[in-house]
Amino acid sequence: MPLTSDFEPVRQELRDRDARAFVHVGRETDSTLRYLGRTGGVEGELAVVVTADRTFLLAPDAPAAATETFPGDQVLPAGGEIPTGERVATVLDDLDLTGTVLTPRTIPHDAALYLENAGYDVASTTVVDEARVVKTDPERLRQTTVQSAACAGMRRVAAVLSEAHVHEEGAPLHWEDAPLTALRLRREANAAMAKQGVHPGQTAIGIGTNPTTPRSSGAVWAGETVVVDLAPFGPDGYHGRLVRTFVVDGDGGWSRRAQLAVNGALDAAIEELGPGETATAVWTELEAEVAAYGFDADGVAGYGVGLDAREAPELDRTDDLDAGTVLALDARVTDDEEGTVRLAELVEVTEDGGRLLGAFPRSLLP
Amino acid sequence: MPLTSDFEPVRQELRDRDARAFVHVGRETDSTLRYLGRTGGVEGELAVVVTADRTFLLAPDAPAAATETFPGDQVLPAGGEIPTGERVATVLDDLDLTGTVLTPRTIPHDAALYLENAGYDVASTTVVDEARVVKTDPERLRQTTVQSAACAGMRRVAAVLSEAHVHEEGAPLHWEDAPLTALRLRREANAAMAKQGVHPGQTAIGIGTNPTTPRSSGAVWAGETVVVDLAPFGPDGYHGRLVRTFVVDGDGGWSRRAQLAVNGALDAAIEELGPGETATAVWTELEAEVAAYGFDADGVAGYGVGLDAREAPELDRTDDLDAGTVLALDARVTDDEEGTVRLAELVEVTEDGGRLLGAFPRSLLP
Repeated sequence: MPLTSDFEPVRQELRDRDARAFVHVGRETDSTLRYLGRTGGVEGELAVVVTADRTFLLAPDAPAAATETFPGDQVLPAGGEIPTGERVATVLDDLDLTGTVLTPRTIPHDAALYLENAGYDVASTTVVDEARVVKTDPERLRQTTVQSAACAGMRRVAAVLSEAHVHEEGAPLHWEDAPLTALRLRREANAAMAKQGVHPGQTAIGIGTNPTTPRSSGAVWAGETVVVDLAPFGPDGYHGRLVRTFVVDGDGGWSRRAQLAVNGALDAAIEELGPGETATAVWTELEAEVAAYGFDADGVAGYGVGLDAREAPELDRTDDLDAGTVLALDARVTDDEEGTVRLAELVEVTEDGGRLLGAFPRSLLP
Repeated sequence: MPLTSDFEPVRQELRDRDARAFVHVGRETDSTLRYLGRTGGVEGELAVVVTADRTFLLAPDAPAAATETFPGDQVLPAGGEIPTGERVATVLDDLDLTGTVLTPRTIPHDAALYLENAGYDVASTTVVDEARVVKTDPERLRQTTVQSAACAGMRRVAAVLSEAHVHEEGAPLHWEDAPLTALRLRREANAAMAKQGVHPGQTAIGIGTNPTTPRSSGAVWAGETVVVDLAPFGPDGYHGRLVRTFVVDGDGGWSRRAQLAVNGALDAAIEELGPGETATAVWTELEAEVAAYGFDADGVAGYGVGLDAREAPELDRTDDLDAGTVLALDARVTDDEEGTVRLAELVEVTEDGGRLLGAFPRSLLP
């Protein structure tokens, strides 16, 4: 199923606000641009223009490649040496448009000024951020695929950790004849995910006890908590999210209790998800459950996942959850002496409740 | 060697233009932000502030992690629910600054408006784009590392193609008991690069004859040109670039002549690089050499490579080349019937001429 983009909410916003066009300018790494333009591998500055009855993508160099994937009407060459904002203004002028142009608040300042200098009133809109919250079936399908790649990456990390052993008294863990380091774990995870056809994204390995800055490099020792945070994204830009914590040869105690708390919090929050539930209720459930185990619940979060690894909605600042929203539920317990236990799951809000995307055990044992 | 950032050109620009501060706002995917802030793995909006005597990074959530890598003075919490631009204005106010604030042209429009509403005059500057052109030793070291990972990815593609064979008359090439597709080639390249500790970036595989839109998916057939375009980036965001073209069981003829032209053009351009040479002279050399072989030289380019896969300078729009600049030289010949042959190299401009970063054979034979 090819990815489409729903331009109708943008057009509704144009009608509601009596505006003539929606415009955005940016690189492909800008998720609003990516959502509306659906390009992949285009280098340089792009623009999208949505009017009452037409949609345009302005792309540099090879508009032909973008034509294959742009779900709108027409791909035009970008400005070349002419600034993109100025080029957009000429496109609007050619359509004989006047009046108000809506843009995301993050449109480059110079592009907004070019539009103003061409006589348009520029006003900002959050309509695309809102349209992105509820995922379509093709979008969710891609997130399911990328999440199973995240599971493959996590499986590889667990396999490496389970093969690691204490090589010598007082020395770090050994794996394949060398000290096991955060860097080696990251490489193994990233290679396993890339093999599944996804981009590894920002894989973070956090070792040990310092709660604010767990070591992200250096060797792993027996008994230390190892937090593995995977946020790969697929060729179309959609992210997954999976966080697990492992302990090799742990003595149990604190980390087991912390795991129970975080595990219970995720279960309770997923249970809470569903039609009619407010987002803050889900977030409160996460927080309350961690606190019920006697831990500080500061490290609890819930947020949207899509073209950005973290995007709208933030659960603690949101009211209603719509079916089709894809969320990361993310809970963490830390202790200055003992370490960090953190788990995160990717969950779809459905009419019947929360549905986990991807399945990976939450055990501390790798 | 840790990455630093040279704030002095920014300060010189403040003095030259009688401005009080330089400000930029954006996500980490924004290369200007990345260059000045040197963060990695921070989610959400960041800001950088440079004054005559202080440098600040505003980071969401976990300023502690950013503190480790920020080469400036102080990391402050970002605005949380307060818009980043408004938060930056309060930081400037606390410093009792008034007057002009310089920003890149791509600063989000809303951030520029918050600064203006707080009484600052906002004016744009390209000083950071210019400062990024010449790479420091630690930057170039990272590009050398990432380029050798690109070579590893290309080696893997060449190995797969050399193992591929005609399985059945009239059928596509087979590899490991299944048809060889662009997708499988991309996965193999990406996994090999990830194993080297880099992010695969936008790997593009272009198969066959259509010059404007070579097939980026589907099976590979004997005799077709396969263009492999690798642009991985390391954990610090610095890119490599390597493009090669392979033909399995080709009949020679056109593709061999095209390879000679493109290969000769790259050699001539690298030869031309050096102190005192203008950028346009290098670009002209590339173009002239391709044309000398009787081919259309439209597909010839040279551009900077760094935190963006393609950044300043564009050779055909630039005057002088400074030592320390890292460039991709990129030449292509296409034919409606025959296919595309494209090669690109990553080259450092030194006082003694062009120096190739990474070495990979340019042969069509995988």
